Amino acid sequence: MREVAVAGVGMTPFGVYPERRLEDLIHDAGSQALADAGIWERRREVEALYVGNFSAEGFNGQNHLAPIAARALGLGGIPATRTEGACASSGIAFREAALLVAGGVYEMVLVVGVEKMNALETPGITRVLGEAAHAEEEAAVGATFPSLFAMIARRHMHQYGTTREMLSAVAVKNHRHGLRNPRAHMRKEITLEKAMAAAPICEPLNLYDCSLISDGAAAALVTTLDRARGLAAMPIRVLGAGQASDAPCLHHKPDITVSRATRWAAERAFAQAGLGPGDVSFAEVHDCFTIAEILATEDLGLVEKGKGGPAVLEGATSLGGRIPVNVSGGLKSKGHPVGATGVAQIVEAVTQLRGDAGDRQIEGARVGLTHNLGGSGATCTVHLFGRA
Amino acid sequence: MREVAVAGVGMTPFGVYPERRLEDLIHDAGSQALADAGIWERRREVEALYVGNFSAEGFNGQNHLAPIAARALGLGGIPATRTEGACASSGIAFREAALLVAGGVYEMVLVVGVEKMNALETPGITRVLGEAAHAEEEAAVGATFPSLFAMIARRHMHQYGTTREMLSAVAVKNHRHGLRNPRAHMRKEITLEKAMAAAPICEPLNLYDCSLISDGAAAALVTTLDRARGLAAMPIRVLGAGQASDAPCLHHKPDITVSRATRWAAERAFAQAGLGPGDVSFAEVHDCFTIAEILATEDLGLVEKGKGGPAVLEGATSLGGRIPVNVSGGLKSKGHPVGATGVAQIVEAVTQLRGDAGDRQIEGARVGLTHNLGGSGATCTVHLFGRA
Repeated sequence: MREVAVAGVGMTPFGVYPERRLEDLIHDAGSQALADAGIWERRREVEALYVGNFSAEGFNGQNHLAPIAARALGLGGIPATRTEGACASSGIAFREAALLVAGGVYEMVLVVGVEKMNALETPGITRVLGEAAHAEEEAAVGATFPSLFAMIARRHMHQYGTTREMLSAVAVKNHRHGLRNPRAHMRKEITLEKAMAAAPICEPLNLYDCSLISDGAAAALVTTLDRARGLAAMPIRVLGAGQASDAPCLHHKPDITVSRATRWAAERAFAQAGLGPGDVSFAEVHDCFTIAEILATEDLGLVEKGKGGPAVLEGATSLGGRIPVNVSGGLKSKGHPVGATGVAQIVEAVTQLRGDAGDRQIEGARVGLTHNLGGSGATCTVHLFGRA
Repeated sequence: MREVAVAGVGMTPFGVYPERRLEDLIHDAGSQALADAGIWERRREVEALYVGNFSAEGFNGQNHLAPIAARALGLGGIPATRTEGACASSGIAFREAALLVAGGVYEMVLVVGVEKMNALETPGITRVLGEAAHAEEEAAVGATFPSLFAMIARRHMHQYGTTREMLSAVAVKNHRHGLRNPRAHMRKEITLEKAMAAAPICEPLNLYDCSLISDGAAAALVTTLDRARGLAAMPIRVLGAGQASDAPCLHHKPDITVSRATRWAAERAFAQAGLGPGDVSFAEVHDCFTIAEILATEDLGLVEKGKGGPAVLEGATSLGGRIPVNVSGGLKSKGHPVGATGVAQIVEAVTQLRGDAGDRQIEGARVGLTHNLGGSGATCTVHLFGRA
């Protein structure tokens, strides 16, 4: 396998953009990534496009998005492929690109993740998101993602003593981080008191335990390390690319406090990289709900199982702490246009490893991990990145 | 790149299955492919799953289908990825598998295409299918796929003298072929008179110019040629795997009588294989409408441009003719569960090349071509297969 690198990244600010079409978001992020690598004028050298998108069909009445994206970017008749894996749709898209470059199939591949959720009102959004759960065994009996993650949270509290305060501490931390990210959707500091007192969504989860409903796109240009060295931006190596699936429903799982797909994807990524959790400088993890960040830090091996909550309270996962998590603001503050999230995490990892993260820069960042989760854990990708 | 082969194939009969879940269809096709290769008991050797599906979301309220498919087949926590490219969704899925095996990333990959369309009534089906067109520039102004292909047909008639009779002759031929395929949805012979006199759908297309609304699944097991030689079934080589994209809308194209994505995908597949159109023994092409088969045979180079209609009338594309097309019955008679179609075409190609096609066997079949089209031509995959 060849060594693979990210040669360019781009991202729209996440937010609410009623006036912008899917094509506009794709164009902005994709053209930034190409310009970052210095190849906008030579973009016909890109050999394939992967588009991570969860449900432009449900949100925007637009399926078959990949050729629309290729045209929006002026890439010509190259293979343009959409991947969908719920909220992990663009983590998967990125991994396809990385594998195909590693395997010598392509020299240069563009990956774009995109979602435009705010075209619908909240009940419609909830319905579309719910279609990532099992239609007959979960959605049909009333389960939504807040309720599924609420069950996980309740069980984690029971099994490990995780508290309401610990959940809120995740939200407070990620909002504090997001204040330093100019592209974050909700740049607003919140207090622990306010987070704990917010309106219940599905107990024990309240409003501030939930990530944001955002519009946006993110892009990454993937090529060989050799090729990336000749381009305009500092190349960042892809050290490992793991993906795993798990049973679609919570009731299929032996222990809902464990994300097995996270563990398996991480094992594969670490094995490829020849690294372990102790080598990771920082992580962008899938905090669709505060409890999801706690599970992720545990199942990635960044903290001991059951200690994800205390680690947040102690500041271990804050910027400046032992293992900073979601310094971008995470899905909670940066926002969660679901199909864009996986690549947006990678944009942050690349930005940090380049030393370009401004006043949220992690000192001495050497190895970054990104963790993108689909559904209540049925799909997961874990990527590891390092300085070239 | 390593030599790649199909080591096993499976397929449900296409039809209308209100009582069968998506999982059931996936299980039936996937387990057949694994059993065909003799590895059902050892299926944990499969390293990745690709699921081609257009819109279980729209038809069945089920997004995030790939991990559901992995669980239905008992494949464990392997990477499970859905690809979507409208009606080319599983042509794309197959190509991902073939490329990743060729590139040395995986040894063995299962591909399943599936769609269960008849869960909705016709207006709902038309709406979901229409989401493969451009939402704002086509669907919002009333375009549906029958109307888009009707425009193509009208222009082809104007430009090349193609007649109503030639369109109907495609339907008559494919229904005659489908009579010999026990897994075809509509095994019913039709006369040219009946086909020409059918109710108009969107002129010049009538009822018999349109493919069927079907439920079903198809599967193929992809591995290296070396590995396939040690398995139970006769391996069939993947000689070329081309994919291309084109502008999403007809009004973006310089000439709507040409499917550029078909031409580009075919060029790439032929170049990989070191073959040309004259080497092809038979083809399974994407006859979503009769006019689409005519375009496909022309743009694949199987007949001269503009001569696709006369070729059908002359019998050149019939079983026993110079270049048999859609001997399976095609989308017209075999049926068109959209996400399953790309792999179902490959199942037919493999069956023919093995010599297992019974009373629809093409004598001396050596090289088979499959052509899978998405939308009105924005996505296309072309695969070439040969005896090992």
